[in-house]
Amino acid sequence: MAVRNVIGQSHTRIDAEEKVTGRTKYVADLRLPGMLTCKLLTSTRSHARIVSIDVSQALELPGVHGVITGKDFPDVYFGSGAVQDRRIMAKDEVFYVGEPVAAVAADDEITALEALALIQVEYEDLEVVMDPLAAIGPSAPLVHENAVDFEGYAFSMGGNQGAMLETDRGDVEQAFRDADHVFEETYRSQAINQGFLEPMACAAEVEANGRLTVYASTQGPYLVRSQLASVLDIPLSSIKVVAMEMGGGFGAKLRLAFEAFPALLAKHTGHPVKLINTREEAFTLNGPRLATTIYLKTGVTKEGRIIAREAYTIFDMGAYVGAGPNSGVSHAVGPYKVPNLKLRSYGIYTNKIYVGSYRASGVADMTFAVESHTDSVARQLGMDPMEFRILNAVQEGDTSTTGTTIPKNGLMETLLAVKERMGLPKKLEEGHGVGIALCEWRSGSGPSTASISVNEDGTVSLLTGSVDIAGSDTSLAQIAAEALGIPLGQVVVSKRDTDMAPFTQPTGGSRIVYSQGKAVQMAAEDALKKLYALAANRLGVPADALANSEGRVYVQDNPPQGLTLGQLGRMTLTSPDGPIIGVASLSSLPYAPVYNTQAAEVKVDKETGHVKLIRFVQSQDVGMAINPMSVEGQLEGGAVQGIGRALSEEMLIDDKTGAVRNPSLASYLMPLAVDMPDIETILVSVPSEDGPFGARAVAESPGFGPPAAIANAIYDAIGVRIKDLPFTPERVKAALAGKEFPEALIDVDALREAEERQSGPGKN
Amino acid sequence: MAVRNVIGQSHTRIDAEEKVTGRTKYVADLRLPGMLTCKLLTSTRSHARIVSIDVSQALELPGVHGVITGKDFPDVYFGSGAVQDRRIMAKDEVFYVGEPVAAVAADDEITALEALALIQVEYEDLEVVMDPLAAIGPSAPLVHENAVDFEGYAFSMGGNQGAMLETDRGDVEQAFRDADHVFEETYRSQAINQGFLEPMACAAEVEANGRLTVYASTQGPYLVRSQLASVLDIPLSSIKVVAMEMGGGFGAKLRLAFEAFPALLAKHTGHPVKLINTREEAFTLNGPRLATTIYLKTGVTKEGRIIAREAYTIFDMGAYVGAGPNSGVSHAVGPYKVPNLKLRSYGIYTNKIYVGSYRASGVADMTFAVESHTDSVARQLGMDPMEFRILNAVQEGDTSTTGTTIPKNGLMETLLAVKERMGLPKKLEEGHGVGIALCEWRSGSGPSTASISVNEDGTVSLLTGSVDIAGSDTSLAQIAAEALGIPLGQVVVSKRDTDMAPFTQPTGGSRIVYSQGKAVQMAAEDALKKLYALAANRLGVPADALANSEGRVYVQDNPPQGLTLGQLGRMTLTSPDGPIIGVASLSSLPYAPVYNTQAAEVKVDKETGHVKLIRFVQSQDVGMAINPMSVEGQLEGGAVQGIGRALSEEMLIDDKTGAVRNPSLASYLMPLAVDMPDIETILVSVPSEDGPFGARAVAESPGFGPPAAIANAIYDAIGVRIKDLPFTPERVKAALAGKEFPEALIDVDALREAEERQSGPGKN
Repeated sequence: MAVRNVIGQSHTRIDAEEKVTGRTKYVADLRLPGMLTCKLLTSTRSHARIVSIDVSQALELPGVHGVITGKDFPDVYFGSGAVQDRRIMAKDEVFYVGEPVAAVAADDEITALEALALIQVEYEDLEVVMDPLAAIGPSAPLVHENAVDFEGYAFSMGGNQGAMLETDRGDVEQAFRDADHVFEETYRSQAINQGFLEPMACAAEVEANGRLTVYASTQGPYLVRSQLASVLDIPLSSIKVVAMEMGGGFGAKLRLAFEAFPALLAKHTGHPVKLINTREEAFTLNGPRLATTIYLKTGVTKEGRIIAREAYTIFDMGAYVGAGPNSGVSHAVGPYKVPNLKLRSYGIYTNKIYVGSYRASGVADMTFAVESHTDSVARQLGMDPMEFRILNAVQEGDTSTTGTTIPKNGLMETLLAVKERMGLPKKLEEGHGVGIALCEWRSGSGPSTASISVNEDGTVSLLTGSVDIAGSDTSLAQIAAEALGIPLGQVVVSKRDTDMAPFTQPTGGSRIVYSQGKAVQMAAEDALKKLYALAANRLGVPADALANSEGRVYVQDNPPQGLTLGQLGRMTLTSPDGPIIGVASLSSLPYAPVYNTQAAEVKVDKETGHVKLIRFVQSQDVGMAINPMSVEGQLEGGAVQGIGRALSEEMLIDDKTGAVRNPSLASYLMPLAVDMPDIETILVSVPSEDGPFGARAVAESPGFGPPAAIANAIYDAIGVRIKDLPFTPERVKAALAGKEFPEALIDVDALREAEERQSGPGKN
Repeated sequence: MAVRNVIGQSHTRIDAEEKVTGRTKYVADLRLPGMLTCKLLTSTRSHARIVSIDVSQALELPGVHGVITGKDFPDVYFGSGAVQDRRIMAKDEVFYVGEPVAAVAADDEITALEALALIQVEYEDLEVVMDPLAAIGPSAPLVHENAVDFEGYAFSMGGNQGAMLETDRGDVEQAFRDADHVFEETYRSQAINQGFLEPMACAAEVEANGRLTVYASTQGPYLVRSQLASVLDIPLSSIKVVAMEMGGGFGAKLRLAFEAFPALLAKHTGHPVKLINTREEAFTLNGPRLATTIYLKTGVTKEGRIIAREAYTIFDMGAYVGAGPNSGVSHAVGPYKVPNLKLRSYGIYTNKIYVGSYRASGVADMTFAVESHTDSVARQLGMDPMEFRILNAVQEGDTSTTGTTIPKNGLMETLLAVKERMGLPKKLEEGHGVGIALCEWRSGSGPSTASISVNEDGTVSLLTGSVDIAGSDTSLAQIAAEALGIPLGQVVVSKRDTDMAPFTQPTGGSRIVYSQGKAVQMAAEDALKKLYALAANRLGVPADALANSEGRVYVQDNPPQGLTLGQLGRMTLTSPDGPIIGVASLSSLPYAPVYNTQAAEVKVDKETGHVKLIRFVQSQDVGMAINPMSVEGQLEGGAVQGIGRALSEEMLIDDKTGAVRNPSLASYLMPLAVDMPDIETILVSVPSEDGPFGARAVAESPGFGPPAAIANAIYDAIGVRIKDLPFTPERVKAALAGKEFPEALIDVDALREAEERQSGPGKN
């Protein structure tokens, strides 16, 4: 293996100093001359027709520069998922408490809030439906009247059903008949908030040339650009999005959020306009994850091999498809060989805030169900849960649920590493338990581009359209430095906007290091090829006789004969081919799976129901840790998010109004440092085929496993299986008292029948 | 010839609206939080040792945040030309009135000015020399004591001689002996100010990450970056230069100007710091062009063929080499075939502000002398000045003064076009005269890069490191649009900085459309090749079967079969090769000459000496007018600058102190619209081999000819030849009174002898 000089070593983030000294500039730090503050008036009704909106008094208030309502926007629908089912601002009807109804731009926040209070909205209430399991029924009130009419449960969309994902393989009915044992369970995960540090923030300004500049705390500047072009009905090329430093996103900031409001107000008033959410608004106005109910049915042979899986999942989407059921459906088997599948996910409309993204959360929900269920099946078979997993785990050459062939990977290494570190199986004292869970994700791909220019002093400027998350700029700079054989400090990562840098898919889905990193590596290699050509010409040797390291390109057989990158940089200014620019562009990289094995050890107080996490061990195949400190940080951070989801976090949503009842960090309980044990992380490095230097994605999968690992540990400790999240003392006590989560929440038979009808002769 | 859709047609500048509505942001419009104002304390002495500087009182003044002197800068010399002879701020010695001695950063300008008054500088005066013709002598006081000692006039540098340019060809002595006639004359051009609209302006800020961001009104952001790195002794990669909109530069803003002062003060104070020159400072602190004295000797056959030229030029450089004698020396023959040459240019130090650049001004000075002399020779030979020029003009295949072969060009067409339009030769009434002049320039080359990314809607973003001058961004956008077959409005020109865009040489020397435009064309062609590859793949045809126009790539033999760039843009997001980026980089393009013929018709009032310009006709070979409106504007603007130089502009420099005596637009007389006749411009289009779509440089050469054309017209009108600029009524009256400019200003024999001695056996 080649010697690595920059990657594989821990580097402090290149922006560490500005971050810790508080000098990093976020949208909230933007102060443009004449800037106004935007505040939103939102719906107080769960579902109502808007009879009238009177903004005249608000407009008369001194200091108010503009008020917009839904009628000020072009008559277009858009969607953050595949379905165009949403207006950026309510026009004739509101569908949930918190839906934007009007926006004000005023000199300051107090004036803007006063103005909101002066806007008169007359509503006419309509019927509401809050429970997705009720909403799926044929007689439920419709969230959207204009949705396609449908009879019963249907494969095609209709009624309150807004999305559907399905996967089939083999003959699942026959497999269940062949199985020696069949198990059925239902699990439910709670609604959760992404809990990012920096609330949503954006600002907009009409430039002197008439173009719109939008400053946003966003993971997806290009997506904001195209969605904003759509809702404002203006050309994409008339918008520049400046991605500001982002204080956390976790999926919540992938898409267009509130940018359209300051943008339209900037156009109306001629002033720059800024909108910054309060923490309460971060809970009530921005798509969280909503509850998911998952039915799993598993057929197993007497040897313990899983041969069939049926899954029905009901995703509550709130009032719009939003981030929808995502890719959760394909994860309903986990990282196991299951030859016969029937997997269905339904996205159901209810009168709540629309669902948002949160770290592949369909998968996180599914992992809780699948890995709890896997444990439950193993124990019911009398098998050791670890051995049952090892027996059924996918291997290189198997076909994944999505039909790709599983490449070489480190799943088994992660299982064995955790087994060894945790000393499994182990016998613990009464009230203590240990549980494991496997996590499975993919390295995110999608369009990526990078450009690297060599400066005249031999340093390089890296132009990447990606937004920094969790130090990804540092990792990208390391990749460029490694590929070019220069120190990290000689790579400048340019702050960029959508005019400047070519298209890159949003920073999310653990795609940056794998996919954008690959583009950076390729761009660096392109630049290096050009540096070699120049050096070969100047040294009078063929390019393939050259090597490079420590900022020098030299003759392999005669290392003293060479040129530094500084010398080459200066030469580019006069060489016929001119300054050197390396570019790369790619759209999709092959599937590179990511596996993580996690183990939790808990102590359960049967008296109080309190679950104390006392040890947490995880091992992930990261392919190649570009920046080990950063990789470990991501793995720890992901695990902590999963632990929060397991033990304390829950958005309480009023079952009558759909309003969020705990929109505050005082009542929405994110885990604190004192709640956490040391998290032991073991890196496994089985290089991916295509990632930069073999790297795989890192960030999302460690968040998937903790709820199941902890549930399994609780079962190990006290013998009860808790199937709904989070495992609050109340739930643990109730479970101990035999008040278990009801199994038959989903009327699976009705769903199967509806599907049969749809699959009949009439189906195309 | 191919049909052109975007180039060759007049387009309003893409920034026209923001410019005319006053919304364009210049450095002066920058308001960063906590920003301080920087003012400079400058030398009041022409040449003195600095005994002490006491800044303590200034530092105590409330509102003052920092004071720097030369001692605060690293101990480095730098130069704006080839010679490193200058400190960015005086340390132990001052060499001219106006040299920076200290800088203050304060809350506001008034406080900064108060602080300057509190700085105590003790000087010890040294000997001064102001006249370059005196300074060149062996006994003159030395401007720089540490300059190499020299005896008499020497080829090598020494004494007050700071620069030397020379060109030789053939046997000039023999040719003079062979000549039927030999003519000798001496001309002098005056000191002039560039007269840009926006005074020098810059601001600096230390970023949260410790890097330095410099906002500058500059033509050369990359040069500012590297020179600033040098004078602050910090890595080039720690500096980002943001080139702001520039309100005129004309060469004055090519290099590092005052940026180092706010930069160092920003580092010292932690605040952003801004420096904006007053108009007075634009005259006194920033390098103007200084006077040039030119001796010409010409040998001619009796048929009127020029066979020999000797030229000695004394460029006054002020206290530092600055922009120096530039490329003027090679223009001492004009666009004529002259087989035997001996051309010498001396750059001489004096105790004045150092010389700056102003539109190839060595060439402008030389053109006045050469084209006046050419006219004088023709008339003394009894030949028509136009016919004499036609007889001697260079042609395709001739060798230029710099040794390159003259390619196909439109010189003769411009001569004939002006001859015809002006009706030459023509007989005018008493006191009226007509004169002509030829101008010669080259299309500027040097490192150029461009990058074009195709957006998902088929529009493109053009990334170019060049600064817009006179609409060059519009021309570059036209070139990209033409090459891609899309409308101009679908090209976004990105506002850029040195981090973002790869290296490009400064905007100057008429290089942008020719050289940067070529890089843009090549980048567009690179993008188009990739678009063709994608389209070929999707349409199932070979790429070479495709054509493109009007935003569509289609099958040549079946035009309805095709894809719009919008469709292709969307496809790039999912095609394996990803989003499309076209890049190009080049260093030098072949020599492409630029020729302009100008004719002036004047009326001279013998009573008052007033010269009235009543008609001005010019014709230039522009190769291909990318944006005819802009090309004509440049040609008119250039001619107006030359007319100002001919008739009214002159920086009056005190011959005792070297101080500028008329640092104001009220006393430095730039021409007004009422002084101008309509300028008739005839475009000739003989395509260059290498320029984008055949374009040649445009801007500089029209400024060269007016002084000579007007001098020749004055001679035609009243029979006196005025050899020093400008042609004020006083000078015209003096000339009429027989008080001509003294011929023997330069002791040419001494220069020749000194050179002979240097060229002897001891010379290496």
